[in-house]
Amino acid sequence: MQINPTRFLADLHQLRTIGAAGPGKGVVRRAYDPAEIAARDWLAAQMRAAGLRVEMDAMGSLFGLCPEDGPSVLLGSHSDTQPEGGWLDGALGVIAGLEVARAAREAGGPRVSVVSFQDEEGRFGVTTGSAVWSGTLSQEAADDLTDRDGHLLGVARRALGARVTGPVDPSRFSGYIEMHIEQGPWLDAAGEKVGVVTAIVGIRDMVVTLKGAQNHAGTTPMHLRRDAFQGLAEVAARLPERLAGIVTPDSVWTIGHVVLHPGAHSVIPGECRFSMQWRDGDLARLAAMEAAIRALLTEVSTARGLSLSYGPMLGLDPVAMAPHLRAALSDAAEAECPGAWRDMPSGALHDATGVSRLMPAAMLFVPSINGISHDFAEDTDEADLVTGLRVLARAVQRSQN
Amino acid sequence: MQINPTRFLADLHQLRTIGAAGPGKGVVRRAYDPAEIAARDWLAAQMRAAGLRVEMDAMGSLFGLCPEDGPSVLLGSHSDTQPEGGWLDGALGVIAGLEVARAAREAGGPRVSVVSFQDEEGRFGVTTGSAVWSGTLSQEAADDLTDRDGHLLGVARRALGARVTGPVDPSRFSGYIEMHIEQGPWLDAAGEKVGVVTAIVGIRDMVVTLKGAQNHAGTTPMHLRRDAFQGLAEVAARLPERLAGIVTPDSVWTIGHVVLHPGAHSVIPGECRFSMQWRDGDLARLAAMEAAIRALLTEVSTARGLSLSYGPMLGLDPVAMAPHLRAALSDAAEAECPGAWRDMPSGALHDATGVSRLMPAAMLFVPSINGISHDFAEDTDEADLVTGLRVLARAVQRSQN
Repeated sequence: MQINPTRFLADLHQLRTIGAAGPGKGVVRRAYDPAEIAARDWLAAQMRAAGLRVEMDAMGSLFGLCPEDGPSVLLGSHSDTQPEGGWLDGALGVIAGLEVARAAREAGGPRVSVVSFQDEEGRFGVTTGSAVWSGTLSQEAADDLTDRDGHLLGVARRALGARVTGPVDPSRFSGYIEMHIEQGPWLDAAGEKVGVVTAIVGIRDMVVTLKGAQNHAGTTPMHLRRDAFQGLAEVAARLPERLAGIVTPDSVWTIGHVVLHPGAHSVIPGECRFSMQWRDGDLARLAAMEAAIRALLTEVSTARGLSLSYGPMLGLDPVAMAPHLRAALSDAAEAECPGAWRDMPSGALHDATGVSRLMPAAMLFVPSINGISHDFAEDTDEADLVTGLRVLARAVQRSQN
Repeated sequence: MQINPTRFLADLHQLRTIGAAGPGKGVVRRAYDPAEIAARDWLAAQMRAAGLRVEMDAMGSLFGLCPEDGPSVLLGSHSDTQPEGGWLDGALGVIAGLEVARAAREAGGPRVSVVSFQDEEGRFGVTTGSAVWSGTLSQEAADDLTDRDGHLLGVARRALGARVTGPVDPSRFSGYIEMHIEQGPWLDAAGEKVGVVTAIVGIRDMVVTLKGAQNHAGTTPMHLRRDAFQGLAEVAARLPERLAGIVTPDSVWTIGHVVLHPGAHSVIPGECRFSMQWRDGDLARLAAMEAAIRALLTEVSTARGLSLSYGPMLGLDPVAMAPHLRAALSDAAEAECPGAWRDMPSGALHDATGVSRLMPAAMLFVPSINGISHDFAEDTDEADLVTGLRVLARAVQRSQN
C-alpha cells in the first residue's frame, strides 16, 4: 500500500478550518457543538469517498468500516477539542487512520477501519464516547452527565439527529492503533521522531480535607494556631523527599486545586481542601506512592492538631499496550527512523484506555514542539507527522501479514 | 462615684436581646440593619435616662454627651456586630461606658461622655464610623463603599433618618478609653483578669502573585514543571525559620486566601495568587518582617523559574496608647486585681486606632473564654466583666483627679 503524505496533510489542514479559532492553528470543537458535528459530517464524506461504510453510534462516535468480510484493524482517535484546542491532538490520529484506510482500499488490502470517538476531551466526562463503547460507562449514566454550564449530555447528543445508525460491534475489529501527539516534552527535547507507548499510566486522584481552627489573624498567637493551610504547605513541601525513593522520572504528582475556608486575609484558615493526584505506569508504584502520601498527611496533621479526611479515591489502573501491536510499531519505527524512536509510557489518558478492554490496543506518539498541547499554540513539524503516518502504515501492514 | 454591677450586667443582657441570633448568646446587628438601629435607639434612651445629651453624627455614631461645661473623658466602643457575632465584643465597652457615665452623673462627677461608633465590624469598610470621625476617611469616600451584596453605605445610612443631629466636635473630649474583650487567648490561659493595652499593632497586607507554566498534569515531568503552587508551599513552609530571628511571641503572619489558576485536578497551576499579612506592635519590626518575606519570595521564585509580582501594600502603622491613660489603667488594675493583670499589645484593630489621632487614647481588655470571638460562642465570665468595669471606673476617676 502506498500512503499519500500530501493528501494526508491537506486533510489535516482542511479539518482545522472547521472550528478554527484563536491565534495560529487553534481550533475549538467541543462535543456536539455545531462546528464539532460539522467536522464529523466532513469526515463521514471523506470515509465514504475512500470506500468505507459510515456508521455512528448513539454517543456520536463515527466509524468508517472496511466493507470487506473478516476482521479489520481499527485506527483513529477523536476529533473534538479542548475549549482552547490545537489542530492535531485527536484529529491527527483520525486523519492518519483515514489515510491508511484509504491507501489500503486503493491497494486492495489490508483491511482497515477508522473511528473518531466523541467527547474524548471531556466536555461531559472523560473519554466519554470510548468509555460508553467499551462498557465502562453506561449510556444512561453518560446521559446524566452535565457540562460546566449545566447542559445534559443526553440532551446535547440529540443534535446528532438522523446521523446515528446504531451500535457498532467491537468483535469485527482485530485490534486498535491510535496515533497521537505526545503532549509532553520528551521526544522534542531528545530530537526523536516516534514514541511507541508501553502503557497508559494509571491515575489516583483524591480530595483531601484538613481541618484546624478558624480564628482571628490578629489576636491568635502563632504557637496556638491550628492553620489548615500551613498543614498543606508542609505536606506539599516535604512530599518530593518522601517520594524520592519510590518514584521514577516518569512518575508525576500534582496539587492542582486548593480551597481555603473562609478564605479571608484576616482569618486563619480553619479548613483547607485540595486535590491530590498522582500517575504512574506501574500498579505497585501507584500503591506505594499512595502509602507515602497518606503517611505524610497523617504525620503532618497529627503534629499540627489538624483533622484529616479523604474523599472517594478515583482511579484508573495502568493499561499495558498489546505486545504484538507494540512489536509491530517498534519494528516499523526502527525501519522508518532507525535509532530515533523510544519506548515510553503515556502520561495522558486516551481513547485507547477504554478500547483496550475490548481488543488488543496500542499507541504511537509523534513529538509535540516544546511539549505544548491543549493550547492554540500546539504544533508538530509536518515532516514528523508524515514519519508517524509511515510508521503507522507499516505497522498495520505488518500486523495483518 | 459608685458603679452598679447589677445594673451594668442587666443592660448588657438587655442589649443582646436586640438582634439575638444563633445558639447561646449570639447576636447579629450589621451596620444600619433594623436591629442595629433599634439597638442605637435603646442606647439613646438609656443615655437620656442617665442625664446625657444624645447626638448622632452623619455616619450614625451615637454620642451621650456630658451636659456640663469643660472637657469630658469619652468612653465607649461600638454596638454593631459581625455577621455571626457575640454578645460582648463592642457592646461591652459601650455599656461599661454608659454605667460609668451614669454613676459619675449620680456622684456629681467626674465628667464622662459615651460613644457607640458605627460599622466597626466593617460591613462596608474597617472601623468605618471612627475612621470618618477621625478624618482618616472622608464622608464622600465612605458613602461610596459597598457591602458584599453591593449596597452603598451612602444609601444604607439614610435609614438613620431624623436621628442624625450633626457633627460632634472632638475637642470637647480630654481622652478616650475603650474597654473590650481580648479576643485572644492570653488572659484566659494565664488566669488573669485585665490587660492594659500598650499599643494596637500595625498591619501590613499584600496580595502576591506567582506565575509559572500551566501544563498537563499527566505528560509534564516533575523536573520540567514550573508549578506556581509549589512555590507558595515552599515559601509558606520556610517562612517561620526565616522570621525566627526577627519576631517576638506577639508577632503574627497569615496566609488566609489562596487562588490557583486554572484550579483543576489535572492541570499544573500556572498561577497562584495569595494574601500575605503580618502584624506587629513595632514599626521597625514590621519593616524587617517585610524584608524577610520579600527576600524569601525572590529566592524561591528565582530558583523555581516563577515570575513574582505584588499588589499594593495596605498598611496601618502601630498606634501607641497614651502614657498617662495607660498609667491610670495600670494603677487601677493593680488596685482591683493585684498581680492578675498584664501589659499587652492589641493584635486586633479597634475604634481607638482612629480616635488616637484626635486625642489621647487607651484600652483595657478582659479575658475571652478560650480566646473565642467573632462567633456566637464568644463569652466572658461575668465576674471578669465586673472587674473590668471597676478598673475602668477607677481609671476615669484617677485621670480627672
